[in-house]
Amino acid sequence: MENCIFCKIIKKELPCHKIYENENVIAFLDLNPVVKAHTLVVPKKHFTNVLDCEEDYLFEIMKVVKKISNHYKTKLNCQGINILNASGKAAQQSVFHLHFHILPRYDDDQINVFPKTNYQKEDLEKLSSSLEM
Amino acid sequence: MENCIFCKIIKKELPCHKIYENENVIAFLDLNPVVKAHTLVVPKKHFTNVLDCEEDYLFEIMKVVKKISNHYKTKLNCQGINILNASGKAAQQSVFHLHFHILPRYDDDQINVFPKTNYQKEDLEKLSSSLEM
Repeated sequence: MENCIFCKIIKKELPCHKIYENENVIAFLDLNPVVKAHTLVVPKKHFTNVLDCEEDYLFEIMKVVKKISNHYKTKLNCQGINILNASGKAAQQSVFHLHFHILPRYDDDQINVFPKTNYQKEDLEKLSSSLEM
Repeated sequence: MENCIFCKIIKKELPCHKIYENENVIAFLDLNPVVKAHTLVVPKKHFTNVLDCEEDYLFEIMKVVKKISNHYKTKLNCQGINILNASGKAAQQSVFHLHFHILPRYDDDQINVFPKTNYQKEDLEKLSSSLEM
């Protein structure tokens, strides 16, 4: 897609710090990392986010997410991995080409990946009844 | 797996606030929600986390993650969705049966899902060279 920064990286019109690439997916380091080796896994086909991504492509992406996560466990000797994804500006998506974040984690890293909120728990039985598919 | 709380939910030995279920996957509300309709998507087969999950199962899970995300966009009228996953205690995994968190998001919700850290960006070219697969 024109003017998409990730499409330009995929077409080699812009550089990246590449970790892995195959026919369907590319992975590179985030330019604004929150942890060491903060990595983005990106489909070569343009989708805005998970909501419009073809199912088969989701599979291709997740295979690479798993592959890199295991690679980092060995190579970086990290003790944990977080996977994070944002769909929509409200969810803090900043580049509107689907990408999954991989965050290597360590026992003593003092990071909290679960957001603190003011949400007051409501009647979950009632809520699940209203949402059940 | 014995003593796994999610395996007990899957076997109906424990209750849950169910949102969706098929042959391979179940989804239910998190008992300690950080946002309204904070949902867990869980494979019926026991895997510890993404690192040991069979690839085909990852696909089954992600199909349901996408399905529920789109459902919530319509049903809850949320403007965004975050997907979050933790592998390992260091990554704040608390139940050691693979699960993906779905967090519905709103424009004005003031939540920050990207953790604040003290990480000082290093030479990304050197780092990517050392990690490239």
